[in-house]
Amino acid sequence: MARVHNFNAGPAALPLAALERAQRELLDFEGTGMSIIEHSHRGKAFEGVHDEALSLFRELLAIPDDYHVLFLQGGASHQFAMVPLNLLPPGKSADYVLTGGWSEKAYEEAGRIGTVRVAATTAEGKRYTRIPRQNELSLDPSAAYVHITTNNTLFGTQWHDVPVAGDVPLVADMSSDFLWRPIDVRRYALIYAGAQKNIGPSGVTVVVARKDLVENSRKDIPKIFQYRTHAENNSLYNTPPTFAIYLMRNVLAVAKELGGLPEIERKNRAKAGLLYGTLDELSGFYRAPVERESRSVMNVVFRLPTEELEKRFVAEAAKQGMVGLAGHRVTGGIRVSLYNAVELASVEALVRFMKDFAKQSG
Amino acid sequence: MARVHNFNAGPAALPLAALERAQRELLDFEGTGMSIIEHSHRGKAFEGVHDEALSLFRELLAIPDDYHVLFLQGGASHQFAMVPLNLLPPGKSADYVLTGGWSEKAYEEAGRIGTVRVAATTAEGKRYTRIPRQNELSLDPSAAYVHITTNNTLFGTQWHDVPVAGDVPLVADMSSDFLWRPIDVRRYALIYAGAQKNIGPSGVTVVVARKDLVENSRKDIPKIFQYRTHAENNSLYNTPPTFAIYLMRNVLAVAKELGGLPEIERKNRAKAGLLYGTLDELSGFYRAPVERESRSVMNVVFRLPTEELEKRFVAEAAKQGMVGLAGHRVTGGIRVSLYNAVELASVEALVRFMKDFAKQSG
Ligand SMILES: Cc1ncc(COP(=O)(O)O)c(C=O)c1O
Ligand SMILES: Cc1ncc(COP(=O)(O)O)c(C=O)c1O
Ligand SMILES: [Mg+2]
Ligand SMILES: [Mg+2]
Ligand SMILES: [Mg+2]
Ligand SMILES: [Mg+2]
Repeated sequence: MARVHNFNAGPAALPLAALERAQRELLDFEGTGMSIIEHSHRGKAFEGVHDEALSLFRELLAIPDDYHVLFLQGGASHQFAMVPLNLLPPGKSADYVLTGGWSEKAYEEAGRIGTVRVAATTAEGKRYTRIPRQNELSLDPSAAYVHITTNNTLFGTQWHDVPVAGDVPLVADMSSDFLWRPIDVRRYALIYAGAQKNIGPSGVTVVVARKDLVENSRKDIPKIFQYRTHAENNSLYNTPPTFAIYLMRNVLAVAKELGGLPEIERKNRAKAGLLYGTLDELSGFYRAPVERESRSVMNVVFRLPTEELEKRFVAEAAKQGMVGLAGHRVTGGIRVSLYNAVELASVEALVRFMKDFAKQSG
Repeated sequence: MARVHNFNAGPAALPLAALERAQRELLDFEGTGMSIIEHSHRGKAFEGVHDEALSLFRELLAIPDDYHVLFLQGGASHQFAMVPLNLLPPGKSADYVLTGGWSEKAYEEAGRIGTVRVAATTAEGKRYTRIPRQNELSLDPSAAYVHITTNNTLFGTQWHDVPVAGDVPLVADMSSDFLWRPIDVRRYALIYAGAQKNIGPSGVTVVVARKDLVENSRKDIPKIFQYRTHAENNSLYNTPPTFAIYLMRNVLAVAKELGGLPEIERKNRAKAGLLYGTLDELSGFYRAPVERESRSVMNVVFRLPTEELEKRFVAEAAKQGMVGLAGHRVTGGIRVSLYNAVELASVEALVRFMKDFAKQSG
């Protein structure tokens, strides 16, 4: 079968070239007579891959030297706990901005560990359709940190301006928009992202953290949960998920070859522009619930007139080789994830289908 | 290049058939037009793989219904913390039996979380050469649990009899000998193992735990660290390491096809028998420091007359396509890991080399 148009929300489409490279060398990595999966994490072969992945991150994102780049396990949900364990000492409080299901989960987990505060929420009932304005944030100037979710995977909203948090360290869950464009890393104290949307397979989580923050983080927690432990051991304190790091390296190498993040941003904006343009054009049939200024470039959500039509939409699209379009089970509707590896041609196919479907059913 | 003889301690050799299957379908999983890596963890394709991996474990190990099988992230080192977080409430103490570097690490991590006690240690200085006898264990009958390391990867010792712990739950780190033979799961309350030695790639950890133990475990810890969370969600609370689980499934399917654990045990005993036999035969040159009754079937350690000869041994073996023979950095010497996927033919090649090397250098 030909490759489908994969609009999955994560795990998600990966660049074909990154997968082909993995397939080619899966049984024999660089003439070593074994798979990269069978190599020791302390040997030269894997070390080369690991170091290349780290330096590709530094290069693509222009990460300053006073930031660590860490490869961890456990997913972003694990960071929901690791962030407060490391950064939220007794007697301090942390600010959370609630913009979707994942920021709620991050807030709840932190609340099991320390004192947390809601600095803002845009919830209306159980739904979110926008990012708060700066003047809606009630920030505690003595907070241990402020936590935001830069892209809300379920609700299709995205921060387009970095909030100003003064001297309070800004912590960002970038799981679903990491590396979608260049950013100024210095605006953040700590960034974390599960790899399985824009940058690789599930099973590895990337953390970018200011060194002084890590240095001053808590020591009275289990060693494996301390950022310090992983920073001091170049993310090799214990056995890393070697294949996940290897495949992430392949994805980053492709990103660099394509022209890096400026070119990736251009492609992502073209894809999202085409899809939102179509939604606006066909707004008599499709309804995009997200406030215009908060629209996500990564996850585009919309509704059809009835749930029955939504089901038919998903089923007919699947027949035409377009998969991953059903919205999250808590939101319903349609969700189109447009991560870096989704090609413009896939969005063009989807848009053609949407026009036909609206005409037939409208 | 032909496949080398891979004696790595972990990540380690995998069955060629499991890797070939992965290679064959890496770009197109079962005609779905995408890689298993690109499939949603909530979709039918991955669900089938996940459930098959779970049921292969149950079948191969004859795991009773009143035990959970969980797939987690973070490695065995993560379990060093999760075990006491879940099972060691304030006011209770846990017993640790120290038989090597990994049990020391497990003990130290647990000590950061609660009260721990050494129930026995066979350390002589910084070395371990044997497993304690039952009558050497000073067990606390009111302990929350007793922790053992069934195979000591660094020092090449292995428990051949399960210790009797009375009513106290027995917790076992089986990272380096999980599935090497059939076991009576009922003797254990909780088993954990990183996959990267006998059963798969790094990046996934298997936990087998008695359901009542999980039910009564602590609730006042972060949700992501609770066994309960993963048990209640069939290990899909958050995004699992999908490719690692997929490849583990491939390895388990091969194990079943080969005749299951009885046949695997027979092969493992033949490999270890040949190697230890050679060491005993050539004991004028090679020195096997481990007490005979404690010899590991998985990791065989030995010394040569000088460190210089050891270096030459490793280098010349590598030239003949035998890799992974250098002992762990804390122990030195030679270590031969004979995990399930290592073929008897590899051990035969090694033994021939050892005889030649001893003749030339002895
Ligand atoms: C923004 C965001 N944060 C956190 C998560 C949870 O990630 P994981 O499943 O890796 O724990 C997700 C998963 O979709 C996400 O989209
Ligand atoms: C017996 C044993 N326990 C624990 C570990 C640590 O495992 P991980 O690196 O997956 O944390 C190892 C690794 O070699 C091991 O052999
Ligand atoms: Mg969200
Ligand atoms: Mg999601
Ligand atoms: Mg050990
Ligand atoms: Mg080891």
